[in-house]
Amino acid sequence: MHLVHGGDWAGYEAEYGRSPLDFSANVSPLGVPTGVQAAIAGASAAVDRYPDPLCRALRTAIAEAENLPPEWILCGNGAADLIWRLAAAKCPQEALLPVPSFAEYEAALRSVGCQVTHHALSEQNDFLLDDSFLESITPKTQMVFLCEPNNPTGRTTPMPLLQAIVHRCREVGAILVVDECFGDFLDKPAAHTLIPLLEGNPHLVILKAFTKLYAMAGVRLGYALCADSRLLGKLYRTGSPWSVSSLAQAAGCAALQEKVYVQRVRALIQVQRPLMSKGLQALGLRVVPGEANYLLFQCAVPLVAPLRERGILLRSCGNYPGLDDTWYRTAVRTESENCCLLAALGEILR
Amino acid sequence: MHLVHGGDWAGYEAEYGRSPLDFSANVSPLGVPTGVQAAIAGASAAVDRYPDPLCRALRTAIAEAENLPPEWILCGNGAADLIWRLAAAKCPQEALLPVPSFAEYEAALRSVGCQVTHHALSEQNDFLLDDSFLESITPKTQMVFLCEPNNPTGRTTPMPLLQAIVHRCREVGAILVVDECFGDFLDKPAAHTLIPLLEGNPHLVILKAFTKLYAMAGVRLGYALCADSRLLGKLYRTGSPWSVSSLAQAAGCAALQEKVYVQRVRALIQVQRPLMSKGLQALGLRVVPGEANYLLFQCAVPLVAPLRERGILLRSCGNYPGLDDTWYRTAVRTESENCCLLAALGEILR
Repeated sequence: MHLVHGGDWAGYEAEYGRSPLDFSANVSPLGVPTGVQAAIAGASAAVDRYPDPLCRALRTAIAEAENLPPEWILCGNGAADLIWRLAAAKCPQEALLPVPSFAEYEAALRSVGCQVTHHALSEQNDFLLDDSFLESITPKTQMVFLCEPNNPTGRTTPMPLLQAIVHRCREVGAILVVDECFGDFLDKPAAHTLIPLLEGNPHLVILKAFTKLYAMAGVRLGYALCADSRLLGKLYRTGSPWSVSSLAQAAGCAALQEKVYVQRVRALIQVQRPLMSKGLQALGLRVVPGEANYLLFQCAVPLVAPLRERGILLRSCGNYPGLDDTWYRTAVRTESENCCLLAALGEILR
Repeated sequence: MHLVHGGDWAGYEAEYGRSPLDFSANVSPLGVPTGVQAAIAGASAAVDRYPDPLCRALRTAIAEAENLPPEWILCGNGAADLIWRLAAAKCPQEALLPVPSFAEYEAALRSVGCQVTHHALSEQNDFLLDDSFLESITPKTQMVFLCEPNNPTGRTTPMPLLQAIVHRCREVGAILVVDECFGDFLDKPAAHTLIPLLEGNPHLVILKAFTKLYAMAGVRLGYALCADSRLLGKLYRTGSPWSVSSLAQAAGCAALQEKVYVQRVRALIQVQRPLMSKGLQALGLRVVPGEANYLLFQCAVPLVAPLRERGILLRSCGNYPGLDDTWYRTAVRTESENCCLLAALGEILR
């Protein structure tokens, strides 16, 4: 067993006996909302019961928050669970992915023997998805994954192109999965979501998660939105019916009440992202103009080991197809934490 | 989306506005151990971090409890998660199942296009697995699932036959999955486990869960034991790397400390199981001589609806292959709860 992603605080703690400052995982730096903590503690006495497999209370709450019918919502054990269910339920023979992007899409597709076509995002163009992607969607394409904003680049695709991709996928009969897990960190989330297109596009699946916005990565809770409730039913039946724990269901219901927390974390990221970007650039580093709560940057000097010695975890992007080990992804955290990272980088690069 | 299993307390609460007395789910009736509740509450503040994908602390604790190397242990989002991973990772073309048994084996196998052969357990023989099962294992058999004690019958297979099944599966090259999730409710658990056979039998996978013994069904935590760590690595890579939540990992570590709780629940079941069996028989019902924390019985009168009206959930076994809707499975709970069920049945049958 090996680790593909960042966030290995447990490995760090085993080695050093203390907690690291973790820039390798892209979650809200404000910690778990107290209402969510209380909900988890409150639900702990009733975990002798199986979770509601249908997540009725949570789906009702999400439906209200998203202004969608509950039948269009399927909850999962994190968005990653839903990615694996999509691949397993549809078993596409050919799928299309931009690279670099989140590694689980390809892992899930390959596990069902799918032939995965990479559409290379151009480094020269700062990894922006452009119109050439439309030509990569062929009549043989059965599934397309897009991450908006993309992980690890933080880039968003222009809305007219996204709409054209939705149309093109419908034309060729491909399922289009748009992962909006980091969408709430955009400056204008409502301006960059395909949720309004769900109606009339039953081949469109949108993934969202509580993981990042509410700092609930350890809880495991995500959801899929789709107007084709038969497809959601198939995803539900492809895997254990109890995949979403009672604790996650309670935590999710509580999180949706945390409106002030969401305002705070969004405001923080909106201020800190450009500061972090400028700070990295001031060190002479190339920074991709990301729009989420993380930034992709390039550095010729190895950073992971010397930062680790200083108690800081950073994500090397060397294992992303389309990137090499000169690329790093850093989370955007609080001002003092970001300064701490920038100072450490300054030391290393001096 | 529909419900296949028992335990739909959420549907009951939505209809009646109060909690049912749930005999349809087979969990410890003593509630969540307080140490487990405290561990969940304590872990709730740190769920901003991703779960440790390798479950290092928990696997170390399980390794100590089971006296096995940590490399032989893989944790999952409930044992059901591991059942689905086994099917998805190995994609067997042909598999063998005794029926009736737990429905998820067949659901998982069918999802990967596996041809599932049923070995019918004889009602006349009280659903005891006998030597004829060995003949059902052919060179074409690639995977076999056994549940010991079996769900919903509560029967255990004689150890010499189990050993012969292990041998026969090795001979034909089949993976043998033995689900021991209810093993701790047997009067002598140590006398009926295949764990001592793991060494030297890398095709043997044993499933266990925290769900039932520790009343942790809502948490989702199970584990697989196997001497073939490459197979476990494959299971790990077939699905999301973060399937086991931080809350589940903390709860599992705490549960393993609950030695007194385990003694109490085991003693309770040992006393109440025969009382429940006698009580059902006194009502003129045929009861299968189960050895776990539940009993399978037959009744010509429909029971689910009239019990539900009385606030009690019972599991109809009508959707188990090999049974029909005259069969029911009841959990064994506390003395007063069991009396409540028996009294309600008495009313209905009078």
